Amino acid sequence: MNLWLSLNKAITLWPERVGLSDGAKHFTYKEFGQRVARLSRALINRGMSKGSVAAVMAPNGHEFMEIYYACGITGVVLNPVNFRLSPREISDILKDCQVKLLFAHVQFKEAVAAAARQCADLEQVVWLGGKGPELPELPQASGEYEAALEAEDPTFPPLPELKPEDLAHLYYTSGTTGRPKGVMLTQGNVSFHALAVIPELHLSDADAWLHAAPMFHLADAWSTFAVTWVGGKHVFVPAFNAGAVLATIERERVTATVMIPTMVNAMLNHPEVASHDYSSLRMIMTGGAPIAPEVVKRIITVFGCDYIQLYGMTETSPVLTLSLLKAHMKEWPEDKRLAVKCTTGRPFIGVEVKVVRADGAEVEWNGREVGEIIARGPGVTPGYWRQPEVTAATIKDGWLHTGDLAVIDSEGYISIVDRKKDMIISGGENVYSTEVEYVLYEHPGVLECAVFGIPDEVWGEAVKAVVVPRPGHNLTDSDVIAFVKARLAHYKAPRSVDFASELPKTGSGKIYKKALREPYWAGRHSQVR
Amino acid sequence: MNLWLSLNKAITLWPERVGLSDGAKHFTYKEFGQRVARLSRALINRGMSKGSVAAVMAPNGHEFMEIYYACGITGVVLNPVNFRLSPREISDILKDCQVKLLFAHVQFKEAVAAAARQCADLEQVVWLGGKGPELPELPQASGEYEAALEAEDPTFPPLPELKPEDLAHLYYTSGTTGRPKGVMLTQGNVSFHALAVIPELHLSDADAWLHAAPMFHLADAWSTFAVTWVGGKHVFVPAFNAGAVLATIERERVTATVMIPTMVNAMLNHPEVASHDYSSLRMIMTGGAPIAPEVVKRIITVFGCDYIQLYGMTETSPVLTLSLLKAHMKEWPEDKRLAVKCTTGRPFIGVEVKVVRADGAEVEWNGREVGEIIARGPGVTPGYWRQPEVTAATIKDGWLHTGDLAVIDSEGYISIVDRKKDMIISGGENVYSTEVEYVLYEHPGVLECAVFGIPDEVWGEAVKAVVVPRPGHNLTDSDVIAFVKARLAHYKAPRSVDFASELPKTGSGKIYKKALREPYWAGRHSQVR
Repeated sequence: MNLWLSLNKAITLWPERVGLSDGAKHFTYKEFGQRVARLSRALINRGMSKGSVAAVMAPNGHEFMEIYYACGITGVVLNPVNFRLSPREISDILKDCQVKLLFAHVQFKEAVAAAARQCADLEQVVWLGGKGPELPELPQASGEYEAALEAEDPTFPPLPELKPEDLAHLYYTSGTTGRPKGVMLTQGNVSFHALAVIPELHLSDADAWLHAAPMFHLADAWSTFAVTWVGGKHVFVPAFNAGAVLATIERERVTATVMIPTMVNAMLNHPEVASHDYSSLRMIMTGGAPIAPEVVKRIITVFGCDYIQLYGMTETSPVLTLSLLKAHMKEWPEDKRLAVKCTTGRPFIGVEVKVVRADGAEVEWNGREVGEIIARGPGVTPGYWRQPEVTAATIKDGWLHTGDLAVIDSEGYISIVDRKKDMIISGGENVYSTEVEYVLYEHPGVLECAVFGIPDEVWGEAVKAVVVPRPGHNLTDSDVIAFVKARLAHYKAPRSVDFASELPKTGSGKIYKKALREPYWAGRHSQVR
Repeated sequence: MNLWLSLNKAITLWPERVGLSDGAKHFTYKEFGQRVARLSRALINRGMSKGSVAAVMAPNGHEFMEIYYACGITGVVLNPVNFRLSPREISDILKDCQVKLLFAHVQFKEAVAAAARQCADLEQVVWLGGKGPELPELPQASGEYEAALEAEDPTFPPLPELKPEDLAHLYYTSGTTGRPKGVMLTQGNVSFHALAVIPELHLSDADAWLHAAPMFHLADAWSTFAVTWVGGKHVFVPAFNAGAVLATIERERVTATVMIPTMVNAMLNHPEVASHDYSSLRMIMTGGAPIAPEVVKRIITVFGCDYIQLYGMTETSPVLTLSLLKAHMKEWPEDKRLAVKCTTGRPFIGVEVKVVRADGAEVEWNGREVGEIIARGPGVTPGYWRQPEVTAATIKDGWLHTGDLAVIDSEGYISIVDRKKDMIISGGENVYSTEVEYVLYEHPGVLECAVFGIPDEVWGEAVKAVVVPRPGHNLTDSDVIAFVKARLAHYKAPRSVDFASELPKTGSGKIYKKALREPYWAGRHSQVR
């Protein structure tokens, strides 16, 4: 099982179907296949072969998908780089994966120039989006992407035999400290995962999928292979922009997309949200971060489509759970169905998931007992790139430990209560930051928020909230604290509230709680539990 | 990827769902899981472990499914035996696979007693359906199935790690000459195939699947794993009986089933076909043999549901093509849609399929050029059990050669014209027996038929038809020949017609053309081309 199978399906079964729509550019699957064939030849002619490492720094677009597939079928290991990282972080990642060839958009030329000076293994840069600078440090001259394709024949070169255990991708996880961690995903991991998602989401050749979340991030990247496999259409926006995404859904008759919750929030709060036609949409999914029930309700109301929460992590290709209803639940009253939609979801058919106590036994399925989510299955990473000790600390007895704390209900639906490291212990009581955040999102004046623990002489940790007020609302800290106290146990309410005009985000658009929390803990040990 | 994953899904996600309905017996997936756990322990306690070979000779029923899963998760290789074979053929198969433990229904006690005398590796028989005879030749005493389960704990024993390449099943192919051929299917083959069928057929927990075709045959066996994986319900009939199947569809609200064409034909011709409610049915599939367009039309009309043709072979787990419509075809007029339904189908998403000339190049996609169907993919067998020379003759350069001749149309839909060995060469012209049979089925007086070549001094081979007349119709050979001549080139019309009250069938219910043809070719060489 490898990535060729999904590409082969699209180009043999749907050759005349417009498979890619990227602004003014449109490609049938036959044309796409020819471009992938040219790029595969270009890779081979540049000395790349099974096991060589390439990286890509690019906005969303058809080129990104061509690179995913050309590397995927030639066995070249691809590292999709989060270009929002600092030049230093990018250099560290590219050095760590021993990149040999880099695809980079010219808008990142400074970061690429810095990396070229640091990465001993880097031989060549292929520029997207125009002519980039020459990089004299590199042994090979830089080239342009389109010129590289034009120079090649549009038929597939002889392709190597790829086994399920052969490495396909290296994704570096965001928000880590110290040395970057490269998550290894194999041909088998990503192919199996793509196939198993298809029935869960009923993907078909009638779908038009919007790549709105960054394609370098697995929240969206898996869809590249799943949607191709069934002959669906790919629609690209170069980078997330709420207004442009709303217009694109209408223009391209988009049927499905997955987003980071902050993106959907921005769309729902966009002034033009009511002025477009969303009748083509059959589902909006969110993943990559928890979502407040209030936001779920607004998605269903405003877009008039189904909502599905996806939870997963890079290490699991990524999906672990989806908030899909079982057949008998479809008869339930609306509020009960909505409650299911707002859970983190039931396990994905492609993976085994358990919520376990510290001793490894499963927690009670009572919606109350908290445990850690662990997972095992064909989509789970074999480990971290050249970091066996980190791998051994994460995968124990074949089970990947997610570090996420959750409860599980009598139907087997999981609800995450917190990241293990984000849980606050205040006066000996556990406070799950997500629970407090969900209540804050019910407040009409709260646009975004983050809750975390800060050091406290008396309580060990104290609950802190940072809130972005909705324009036109005046909030005070005592309003906010009283709002939470009216709805949760008092010890869960923030002891102090800060107001901000925006919150820091990670490269994939998640709220970056670590950056908020870190200044309070500078010089202390207890932050890392 | 292994069979545990699908079982785990059903018992964790749908524990309270009635997963199995077998006459008066009903089991939730929780109860089923406990029975599989008990049987797994029983296997281990009888000295079976990863790689040991067990066999089963049983009619359809919940026990068959328990045996599939208990062997599947403990790594015991299971050989599901076609019990319609002669005792001698059965002994040959059981000897060839070196069976250690045999599950057998007491109705097959004579064949089992014969096998017990012949199979040196056989240690023990576990009887289903009551108390069977003691077999003094065997080193271990025989036992009863239910007693074996009752003696064990209903929790899963420690299970071995199973890799995709570990062997899961040995299916012996029917209608072969000489030494029986055991098709090896791995854990990866059958699991991948089951997963990939789910989206093609939109299987879900709302489905009730009828096991009407024999569970020892892959035409049905794959559904055991696919339907379980999504929490659907399994409905069993012990053996095919047209009237009982019609009643069961109504009583159990069956949504989907796969049958051999001869079975559907028997249902359509059953006197009570009009007296049942089929409103629960969403699709009837046929597989295992070609089906005439006339029969497809009657299925759609009589049962009021969708029809899908499946084509495949044991060696490919089995599906290779399905006659599913592409999204844009759903707007086509009815007759064009029906024509697509009547093709053998477009390639299954889980496999690569090509139709090739003798030199290996693909035929033109013009619906006219005939070539051989070849296939490659994660569901394809690694080969035949201990017959490397047969494996090498069948799988060349990684592609399995099916021996089926077909054309492919401009949309990529395949239509089989004949088995390579059933093609008739008469006066230098190729006559495809299937084409002639399809025309014969259009005749109102034809209930069943078979067309094949017989030796002819002048033409090399001559076209022969054997026809079973529909009750109440008087047919003559000249009627039949004239009917074909009015519709096809004259050289394709039968030169002679025999009438019979029934046609010989293989164990899986297919028309057994070899038995009809063989007497004509006794003592000649040209039968095997």
